[in-house]
Amino acid sequence: MGIKRILIANRGEIALRIHRAAHEMGIETVAVHSTADAEAMHVRLADHAVCIGPPPATDSYLNVANIISAAEVAGCDAIHPGYGFLSENAAFADIVEAHDIKWIGPKPEHIRTMGDKVEAKRTAGKLGLPLVPGSDGAITNLNEARELSNQIGYPVLVKAASGGGGRGMKVVPTENDLESALSQCKNEAKSAFGDDTVYIEKYLGNPRHIEFQVFGDGRGKAIHLGERDCSLQRRHQKVLEEAPSPVITPEERDRMGGIVASAMADMGYRGAGTIEFLWEDGEFYFIEMNTRLQVEHPVTEMITGMDLVREQIRIADGKDLSVTQEEVRFEGHAIECRINAEDPFTFAPSPGEVTAYHPAGGMHVRVDSGLYAGYRIPPYYDSMIAKLIVYGKTRERCIMRLRRALDEMVVGGVKSSIPLHQALLQQDDVLSGNYTIKWLEDWLETRDA
Amino acid sequence: MGIKRILIANRGEIALRIHRAAHEMGIETVAVHSTADAEAMHVRLADHAVCIGPPPATDSYLNVANIISAAEVAGCDAIHPGYGFLSENAAFADIVEAHDIKWIGPKPEHIRTMGDKVEAKRTAGKLGLPLVPGSDGAITNLNEARELSNQIGYPVLVKAASGGGGRGMKVVPTENDLESALSQCKNEAKSAFGDDTVYIEKYLGNPRHIEFQVFGDGRGKAIHLGERDCSLQRRHQKVLEEAPSPVITPEERDRMGGIVASAMADMGYRGAGTIEFLWEDGEFYFIEMNTRLQVEHPVTEMITGMDLVREQIRIADGKDLSVTQEEVRFEGHAIECRINAEDPFTFAPSPGEVTAYHPAGGMHVRVDSGLYAGYRIPPYYDSMIAKLIVYGKTRERCIMRLRRALDEMVVGGVKSSIPLHQALLQQDDVLSGNYTIKWLEDWLETRDA
Repeated sequence: MGIKRILIANRGEIALRIHRAAHEMGIETVAVHSTADAEAMHVRLADHAVCIGPPPATDSYLNVANIISAAEVAGCDAIHPGYGFLSENAAFADIVEAHDIKWIGPKPEHIRTMGDKVEAKRTAGKLGLPLVPGSDGAITNLNEARELSNQIGYPVLVKAASGGGGRGMKVVPTENDLESALSQCKNEAKSAFGDDTVYIEKYLGNPRHIEFQVFGDGRGKAIHLGERDCSLQRRHQKVLEEAPSPVITPEERDRMGGIVASAMADMGYRGAGTIEFLWEDGEFYFIEMNTRLQVEHPVTEMITGMDLVREQIRIADGKDLSVTQEEVRFEGHAIECRINAEDPFTFAPSPGEVTAYHPAGGMHVRVDSGLYAGYRIPPYYDSMIAKLIVYGKTRERCIMRLRRALDEMVVGGVKSSIPLHQALLQQDDVLSGNYTIKWLEDWLETRDA
Repeated sequence: MGIKRILIANRGEIALRIHRAAHEMGIETVAVHSTADAEAMHVRLADHAVCIGPPPATDSYLNVANIISAAEVAGCDAIHPGYGFLSENAAFADIVEAHDIKWIGPKPEHIRTMGDKVEAKRTAGKLGLPLVPGSDGAITNLNEARELSNQIGYPVLVKAASGGGGRGMKVVPTENDLESALSQCKNEAKSAFGDDTVYIEKYLGNPRHIEFQVFGDGRGKAIHLGERDCSLQRRHQKVLEEAPSPVITPEERDRMGGIVASAMADMGYRGAGTIEFLWEDGEFYFIEMNTRLQVEHPVTEMITGMDLVREQIRIADGKDLSVTQEEVRFEGHAIECRINAEDPFTFAPSPGEVTAYHPAGGMHVRVDSGLYAGYRIPPYYDSMIAKLIVYGKTRERCIMRLRRALDEMVVGGVKSSIPLHQALLQQDDVLSGNYTIKWLEDWLETRDA
């Protein structure tokens, strides 16, 4: 007879987020916490709380044995992992299910598949998701390289198989540059990695990051909830996210959303997931799939009116999706600012006591945060301390509201990214939506110069 | 071109509310404040602030000369009065307009008309709004009383013309009781007030309070934004408000809304207004019209998606209504809890320092409040310190969310009405929407007993 008590295997705002959805469904919550988090809001608000270890996450929030024990002792019939920590740990999901506790997440086999980059791409390709075009395996000679590159279209990228993190890559602007780039890359790869195997793939010079929110019932039905644009990133960390994307038309949303939803249906995917793409010149290229709730899920909630955590819990409880694709409506615009306890421009962490706190309020403003005046931000965990999410009928009105919300938000005693967001919302490119995944780092460099 | 700087002639959450709408429109704000409010949030957030006098409202927030001076010195081109204080003071509105400052409110003549109970009823009747049926003037003999009472239908109410506040009234259940009631009431009235003039009107035994939000452009166009049910009252003070009313059907909303909107159109009404009715057995009876923004306006904002303060400012700026009646959509359910600094059950005021503050957060939860930890609630003004407004797709989901929001809201150092609301939301009658304007006082008495 349905889930009655959920253990929330996480901390901070997401633990609160899950608590809220559960309580609104009449479900009790059990918080777990490290000794550093005994005074945290997620602990204060939960119906029960269990200390699961000392501050380092490996000893507490990643401590599978302690979390399972806590769930059993507290009589929980389900576990929600939030994001981060154990949320994409297939082995943990297996253990949870082996203990006859409902796992509020995807099937462990899908977590496993999508957690393996190679396997994920293969699966995505089989399911019909668009991949970055390129050689399936190593390129062995110039003719092969020529033929493939012509097929893909220039510029292309020559990549060392053993490279990574931007190393061992050469951009090839035209066919004339191909021969030298190929031999150069092979030579460099041989000397740098001891392996001269190279691939060729399409070069995406300046893409956007666009991701689709999906939900599956695990029995062959799936829907999409539109896209989020998360191109404003620094070191692969999203800083500000919005929905819908300024560059996606309703027709394109329907088309691409249809593709991802039917891929999830074919897969028999269960629960919430996000399919991440790079997007350039109107084309999508699959990067990866996150088999969990995302930090930025509230922007989707704001434009669809759906409670995504409620939907996760319902699905884990064996219920059908609460809406059909036809019933999903997109309305207005939402933007989320991640607020971290860090210097807004050097990004140096700034833990410590919050001496004053005033969240923004008013119409269409949502703050997801466990902050309170007197709270000490521990130095052990992620620096994100609040999410400010704002809705407007149009993107322009959303931005006006977001500016005033940022202006009224007070986090005293520590540095925060509020001034970064305030500065971003004065930039023409941000205001016009004209940015890519490189924009923020470029802008920060210009600012420093 | 257009309003550039608004003086906000108010304090507390409504001053903040107006500031927010203005800033989201790119308009600057000037706060005024008494010496007791120098540290208040509305002062901190405004672009400029002017101290207008000592704590007593008559010396500051009601001090017309000081407010007008502040507006002139600060270069304001408009004044928003909020609710309470000078908001329904026609003379103030006249003075504002005489100073060539835009008055963000109705035409002074309409404030004047609706502020006079007799004149308001007469006007409402002429405009086709349903009144409480009764004798137009004094009842002089039994035959007249009989004829009228039969026409109205029993029970009727015999009322002394000089009575008031519940004194000098007799309920007449049947025709058999009429003669004795009439002579008794006349005798009592004569001895109590020295005047035996009596009226007869329909007796409303147990009505609900249902009010319609209206907007006019001042040039003959007007719309309604549906009703709010504010029946949960104590000593004529609203405690909890919701929209839509649990007893009004969409057809009835359209019908009655149409009547009030066309009344406002005929009147040439400008700006926001609320037409208050008693409602019993499916019939509406006009009580009064408030020619200003109401405390409970956010529940209407939540189910229509419209920003009512923005609309007020637009209209004062000479713009058209932002929507037609056909474009107004009602979706979901919203409830507002007024949170006062007072004992939740004795209602004794509890001003003082707020030692801890954590507003409820998360999806579809709005808190309008100027509170912060360390703020001192002054003893001079209204005890309302926050409004918690919650939305849900259905009334039931709204209530579940409201409960969890109340559970997580912390106002430390002073007593607050949070426990009253928590208790109310456990009562079957509140949960089922089965309450009238007498319900809350009856329930409080039972509780005490």
